Amino acid sequence: MTARLGTAAGVERQLAEYRDLTYRALRRQLPTREPRRYLYDLITGQLSHVGKGLRPALCIATCRAFGGSIERALPSAVSIELLHNAFLVHDDIEDGSLYRRNEATLYVEQGIPIAINVGDAMNVLSIGSLIENIPILGADLSYRVFHEAQHLILQSVEGQALELGWTRDNVFELTEDDYLRMVLKKTCWYTSIHPCRIGALIGTSGTIDADRFNLFGFLLGAAFQIQDDILNLVGDEDQYGKEILGDIWEGKRTLILIHALRQCTDGERDELRRVFSVPREQRTERDVQWVFRLFERHASIEFARAALREMVQAALEEFDVAYRDAPAGADRDFIRQLIPLLGDRQV
Amino acid sequence: MTARLGTAAGVERQLAEYRDLTYRALRRQLPTREPRRYLYDLITGQLSHVGKGLRPALCIATCRAFGGSIERALPSAVSIELLHNAFLVHDDIEDGSLYRRNEATLYVEQGIPIAINVGDAMNVLSIGSLIENIPILGADLSYRVFHEAQHLILQSVEGQALELGWTRDNVFELTEDDYLRMVLKKTCWYTSIHPCRIGALIGTSGTIDADRFNLFGFLLGAAFQIQDDILNLVGDEDQYGKEILGDIWEGKRTLILIHALRQCTDGERDELRRVFSVPREQRTERDVQWVFRLFERHASIEFARAALREMVQAALEEFDVAYRDAPAGADRDFIRQLIPLLGDRQV
Repeated sequence: MTARLGTAAGVERQLAEYRDLTYRALRRQLPTREPRRYLYDLITGQLSHVGKGLRPALCIATCRAFGGSIERALPSAVSIELLHNAFLVHDDIEDGSLYRRNEATLYVEQGIPIAINVGDAMNVLSIGSLIENIPILGADLSYRVFHEAQHLILQSVEGQALELGWTRDNVFELTEDDYLRMVLKKTCWYTSIHPCRIGALIGTSGTIDADRFNLFGFLLGAAFQIQDDILNLVGDEDQYGKEILGDIWEGKRTLILIHALRQCTDGERDELRRVFSVPREQRTERDVQWVFRLFERHASIEFARAALREMVQAALEEFDVAYRDAPAGADRDFIRQLIPLLGDRQV
Repeated sequence: MTARLGTAAGVERQLAEYRDLTYRALRRQLPTREPRRYLYDLITGQLSHVGKGLRPALCIATCRAFGGSIERALPSAVSIELLHNAFLVHDDIEDGSLYRRNEATLYVEQGIPIAINVGDAMNVLSIGSLIENIPILGADLSYRVFHEAQHLILQSVEGQALELGWTRDNVFELTEDDYLRMVLKKTCWYTSIHPCRIGALIGTSGTIDADRFNLFGFLLGAAFQIQDDILNLVGDEDQYGKEILGDIWEGKRTLILIHALRQCTDGERDELRRVFSVPREQRTERDVQWVFRLFERHASIEFARAALREMVQAALEEFDVAYRDAPAGADRDFIRQLIPLLGDRQV
């Protein structure tokens, strides 16, 4: 037990180190000119609540595991973290989310128009930081990373389109496969597949076949998302930083909802349809609590926990395939030890 | 008179030709895969109402005027037009605009969440089309264009931040200089400065000093925006395609409003402050009409018309500076003839 705790603490420390490195580089790159009040101060504010830094850490550690240096991975790591934060600003508007990292979301504080524009600015800053790659990686590899970034952003907006469409149109005819396909696009590409792909591309100077990371990244990202769905229901609000039961308020098609839809009676299904047929602001506390109890009644949270355990186990096995050419070392170990921790995270 | 009409018709024909070329290339590039209903069909729909195509035409014609070919300019022209359409989707949400090109705006039709996501997708497709430059222009010049695109997008979001902030906070302490600075960023960079800069860079294989187009592009873009402000008040709704008096409904800080604020009595100013202190949906037809009559009373529209004439005159003079090295020819003539037409446009 002491050994496991020791490992977990070591992984957390390494994660924090790569995250802090990334944020230091990222802050150096932010414009400090006008307009401050309606733009750059708001971006700085958004980036002052640092997240876990999972994406840049995966990128940097994979690069190092395959023989590259931190310096070569850093602009791409900065780009991913900026992109992630840009997504969050638009996501929160799209989902109607009220809290993020224990603060009011940007659009709640500043209004939707300014928040959309701040997200757009963070998006372009993210793509712009890839320009820094040119003198470090050369033209060919830099273009490769740029191309990878384009691909991941398209995957993300496609996944987001599915989720938003299902919620808006109150789509119920969804299977676990639909969920995983949506999560593959919405979460996995930018959270895990892309960071591993470009980390390995940079580490090997473009010689590796990056597709070998796709399945590993999918399993890891899916585990991450399923744990997010679970934490949203039963997490500790202070640690989680978002509104507990927010996904029910927002009508999200989580793995848990999809399981409950399959298990429930016709009467319960009709009631679910009624609850989710109105926009968020018309949903009542009573309805949201009823949905949560339905999840408990049909053991849907337990179902998600079991799916999560399977994803983590499969990710561990797939890790050995994806990282087979990476020599033993601290960064390879770090990524492997990260896998079960992500399935276990409370934050 | 026949000669002038003949010239105008020729310019319109050339504009349409470059526009159609651009849209053909643009449509070939759009993904046709899933998700269609919540994403790609909506993008196709947005792009089925073609605009004037001013930006790609400026880019292509400038490239040709400096010795380049259509083929070399086309990916960049496609990128600008896609970016323009992406901006419009987010702008309409940010401004609360109801109509565009005689149709309901996308967010009115599909809801804000899906519209934000469609705009994000169009943005990334726009940047992605710059990848097509690499085999045509080579790595160095392609990176230069990419860098230029980054710069222009940042300028645009900065200008947008100013406009949205002034509207949200009901800022009245604005001069014509503030207006022009905002328009320089919000409109001129992407409408005229950038298309001319990259057209000339591509046409001269990167040997020209692109800064020489900044003043010309500013004057042309400002003329374009001032005419837009005027058309919004007194244009023909069918031709203009947007809601007449929409800027008053939306509380926009136009040149006309800024002039009226300088001319009006203290009582009128207090009344203006009251009218613009509430969000759009609480504004009344009566209040909007009162503002319009105030503009008439203080000859603010006449003031804007005079400013527009000066901008057009200055743009004509600055054209000779910016295009001094471009040999006489059809594309050089086209751009020169476009200048007075833009100040005169009804669409």
